[in-house]
Amino acid sequence: MRQMIRERLEELTGVRTNLFENDFLLTWGQSEADLRAVLLTTEILEHFYQANLDARAFRGGLAVSIFRDKSTRTRFSFASAASLLGLSLMDLDETKTQIAHGETVRETANMISFLTEVIGIRDDMFIGEGHEYMAEVSAAVAEGHKEGVLPQKPAIINLQCDRDHPTQSMADLMHLQKTFGSLKALRGKKIAMTWAYSPSYGKPLSVPQGIVGLMTRFGMNVVLAHPEGYGLRPDMGPIARRQASESGGSFTVVDSMAEAFEDADVVYPKSWAPYEVMRQRTEYLRGGQADRLEALEKEGLAMNEKHRDWECTEELMATTRDGEALYMHCLPADITGVSCEAGEVAASVFDRYRIATYHEASHKPYVMAAMVLLNRFEHPDRVLFRLRSQALPRHYLD
Amino acid sequence: MRQMIRERLEELTGVRTNLFENDFLLTWGQSEADLRAVLLTTEILEHFYQANLDARAFRGGLAVSIFRDKSTRTRFSFASAASLLGLSLMDLDETKTQIAHGETVRETANMISFLTEVIGIRDDMFIGEGHEYMAEVSAAVAEGHKEGVLPQKPAIINLQCDRDHPTQSMADLMHLQKTFGSLKALRGKKIAMTWAYSPSYGKPLSVPQGIVGLMTRFGMNVVLAHPEGYGLRPDMGPIARRQASESGGSFTVVDSMAEAFEDADVVYPKSWAPYEVMRQRTEYLRGGQADRLEALEKEGLAMNEKHRDWECTEELMATTRDGEALYMHCLPADITGVSCEAGEVAASVFDRYRIATYHEASHKPYVMAAMVLLNRFEHPDRVLFRLRSQALPRHYLD
Amino acid sequence: MRQMIRERLEELTGVRTNLFENDFLLTWGQSEADLRAVLLTTEILEHFYQANLDARAFRGGLAVSIFRDKSTRTRFSFASAASLLGLSLMDLDETKTQIAHGETVRETANMISFLTEVIGIRDDMFIGEGHEYMAEVSAAVAEGHKEGVLPQKPAIINLQCDRDHPTQSMADLMHLQKTFGSLKALRGKKIAMTWAYSPSYGKPLSVPQGIVGLMTRFGMNVVLAHPEGYGLRPDMGPIARRQASESGGSFTVVDSMAEAFEDADVVYPKSWAPYEVMRQRTEYLRGGQADRLEALEKEGLAMNEKHRDWECTEELMATTRDGEALYMHCLPADITGVSCEAGEVAASVFDRYRIATYHEASHKPYVMAAMVLLNRFEHPDRVLFRLRSQALPRHYLD
Repeated sequence: MRQMIRERLEELTGVRTNLFENDFLLTWGQSEADLRAVLLTTEILEHFYQANLDARAFRGGLAVSIFRDKSTRTRFSFASAASLLGLSLMDLDETKTQIAHGETVRETANMISFLTEVIGIRDDMFIGEGHEYMAEVSAAVAEGHKEGVLPQKPAIINLQCDRDHPTQSMADLMHLQKTFGSLKALRGKKIAMTWAYSPSYGKPLSVPQGIVGLMTRFGMNVVLAHPEGYGLRPDMGPIARRQASESGGSFTVVDSMAEAFEDADVVYPKSWAPYEVMRQRTEYLRGGQADRLEALEKEGLAMNEKHRDWECTEELMATTRDGEALYMHCLPADITGVSCEAGEVAASVFDRYRIATYHEASHKPYVMAAMVLLNRFEHPDRVLFRLRSQALPRHYLD
Repeated sequence: MRQMIRERLEELTGVRTNLFENDFLLTWGQSEADLRAVLLTTEILEHFYQANLDARAFRGGLAVSIFRDKSTRTRFSFASAASLLGLSLMDLDETKTQIAHGETVRETANMISFLTEVIGIRDDMFIGEGHEYMAEVSAAVAEGHKEGVLPQKPAIINLQCDRDHPTQSMADLMHLQKTFGSLKALRGKKIAMTWAYSPSYGKPLSVPQGIVGLMTRFGMNVVLAHPEGYGLRPDMGPIARRQASESGGSFTVVDSMAEAFEDADVVYPKSWAPYEVMRQRTEYLRGGQADRLEALEKEGLAMNEKHRDWECTEELMATTRDGEALYMHCLPADITGVSCEAGEVAASVFDRYRIATYHEASHKPYVMAAMVLLNRFEHPDRVLFRLRSQALPRHYLD
Repeated sequence: MRQMIRERLEELTGVRTNLFENDFLLTWGQSEADLRAVLLTTEILEHFYQANLDARAFRGGLAVSIFRDKSTRTRFSFASAASLLGLSLMDLDETKTQIAHGETVRETANMISFLTEVIGIRDDMFIGEGHEYMAEVSAAVAEGHKEGVLPQKPAIINLQCDRDHPTQSMADLMHLQKTFGSLKALRGKKIAMTWAYSPSYGKPLSVPQGIVGLMTRFGMNVVLAHPEGYGLRPDMGPIARRQASESGGSFTVVDSMAEAFEDADVVYPKSWAPYEVMRQRTEYLRGGQADRLEALEKEGLAMNEKHRDWECTEELMATTRDGEALYMHCLPADITGVSCEAGEVAASVFDRYRIATYHEASHKPYVMAAMVLLNRFEHPDRVLFRLRSQALPRHYLD
């Protein structure tokens, strides 16, 4: 294990990234080297953990989380990443505190950052809001750092916005890399990112956007499938197409789950809300139009109902490559007959891949920690080499 | 102090327990060696603290708490235990998050455990729920660990369930051991676990169950006293009787506080709800029968009112061994004329033992930490020997 | 930097304070040496941080926060101080827990303190409550420590009460010291602590009280300005006057913002509620008189409206010393046309000093940490000398 860590670290030394003191908000805004550095560092941190090596690159300092939406999984992943690195978690709970919107963001961002190394933000509910908010916080702490208010510039980690969910998609990429053996092995593989039925309303679009925005960079044949009206942000198509053409892969949009599943190596059936409905919802919310919001929710749910047949069944799975495509999900899934009457996936399919989806999720804390290290240190390889040499046990061996 | 630590550690080395990677959910499910190991480790950790020795056996990792009932004391005890061991506390607040019941427990348990060393759970409100929930979480993380999802198997700590309150009863046992000099000195001592009047409704049964379930193992004469209708879980009687007979003690149930107090060495007057009322409440809650719940609460309170004379008075205290029985309480007590008009204990009695009850409570953080160490390390004695040799000051001496 | 730390530490060694195990609740209750020790230790900790030196004087233990009012800034400052010193933060959220008032405070204070090094309390909403509550908690843990329940006596840190806001005023003093070069340079400088208009109701009086209660000790000419009816606690005048006379400064109360600003070196325009209204509010609240409270709020707001002209404008700023007085604020400010229609300060004035107010606030985490060190260690200079010799990097240099 320690030999493997050395090899990966030497590899990391060779990767030139632009990540130091730069915020990684959208995977499609980052170079391939940046992505490779995150994957490598994630892998190294996982090896550190398994080898019982202390990876605390910090001796105190805050990791601040801001969740503008409910969350269990992401909340715990971020807390785990903070603890792994030696940081103290501090949640900015907007219901408890005085943070507002717009102008005061700049001030609050600085007030919470005097000893802060990282701010993780989840803000995925409103179209045109989440990413902008993160960019605003990022600019605010950059100014504070430049003006000498903040001795350090905290890294901003996108824990899910309205556009991308990079810690999820990078964890998914880790999972693919591990399942197929390497990034190279992904070339030519077909991945079906498809909409699936759910009885609930308003699921964010950031997961499908994140998947097509990332997987098109590795020569994969990415097929996006959804019923009419469930398209992603309009700018995602061009981004995915350009990336696919550069990487030697492809990007196709179809309106049939069956077509997407055919001969697929990987399937990712997952519900999301229609972009237009989400956009309108944001508008009504800004305008305080409660009655229209209610009508919109009914409309959205009724729209879903027409597509109850978009379910990942055993029959569909049988049509994938050798009937054995890798099933993926960001969890929690809507499982037919388990978590709901009818949902995204048949119980027998989910159950076969249940443990695999747990493995998929298990990369997230390390992805987050990797992003922090790459942002906060100019030479994270040296930091990790030092931690490896120091070789403090994470827990006391007995 | 360091010599005393060495002696206790050598004693601990000699105790063969079954605690490594096994969850300690009910004291009556554990061997006497297990109990002795917890007591010894608790004592050692207390000595570490007093000797200003760092006891952090972990360098990072999460201690997760799940409180399904309000709590101050237990919450802070668990946080203290986590800090003592070098773990980062993370609370799973079900109102903030997406955790539900039943099927999703398995998934959530794994999702919060990637870097988790311990999960402390308090779930004491519903008969037939709390223990089962803990067992479910325990099985879920055991599966995750077996399948390679979790590099470690988090310890599950029972912070109070519907059956037992082992961190309380073990702290109480520590208190008895300290007060009377040794475990052996408890043989033949009479302890009166008696119901007492309280104006409040629905107090859990886990404290009296925990006391009769634990103290019958040390040759004590345990007398349980309560008015008609206030019996414990039906299985507690047989357990207590069997244990008492094995340990050379006795277990008696009486319906008079006076009888229980007579010549008692220890008295533990404390209110609890009738088992049948609690059982029915759980049923109504499951069925969503709000009107019946309200009627049941009224009934329960009216039932209490009939027994306002069940109060630990000076008169009753005078009938105990030399009039000087040790008064115990898990706190907070309902003190007549202080926290309520009429309650469990007379103000003058409570006041005389107030500091003693603080001492009684003070063992809880160490009991919890001891349970974590014994569960997470195969040879906790070696871990503690190393920490003792290393001898880092807990705070910088000046 | 390390040389500067040595010099300051040698200076600290020479200061005889009364702070060890004594709670610093009101600046006017402390000696000048105490204040100087806090300033020096604050400065040293800031140098530690900038020099990337680990300042964790503790290896585990709790820092408990109790916020009886909303807070972002103070909450994060306290969390930062805890992390800086190696303590684990634990918030006592009274809505989640069983803490009540009066008698149970004593018990709860001990129950949360078994491994606690510091309790930070913010309780500023009710006249005659906050300071008393802190004193009560302080006495409770002192008793617990004396009785052997608590191995250590936690420091009580006043994070704002109804009388004083010492972590704010000490941070403000740090800011003045830094701006003017030294404490001595403050002699003869004029500081205008003036009321300013705000559209909101019920702002605490602790900031203006804290400023006049502290700045009168350093030979400053302190002018307090407010409209009729907005006087501070009646005892503040005598305190400020006595201190000013002892320090060779002065204390004047005027009823005109213009008069206060004239030739001022420093201006601190900030809204607060009238003492009488706050006093009455507390009474109505205690009596549960909701209708009267509502009427009182209306009255208070109407009273404010008469003084909309109390705004820190460019015109007023022009009348200060060379038109360049230092503008101060504890943040967040009510900025005209930004956070409200009409407020405490003109947008252009605030914007010019915005970064300066961030610097002003940046001292708070270090002031809090300094107060903890001085309270918990008899020879904090030795502790800091050891940490400096040990010279562990706060984060791993790369």
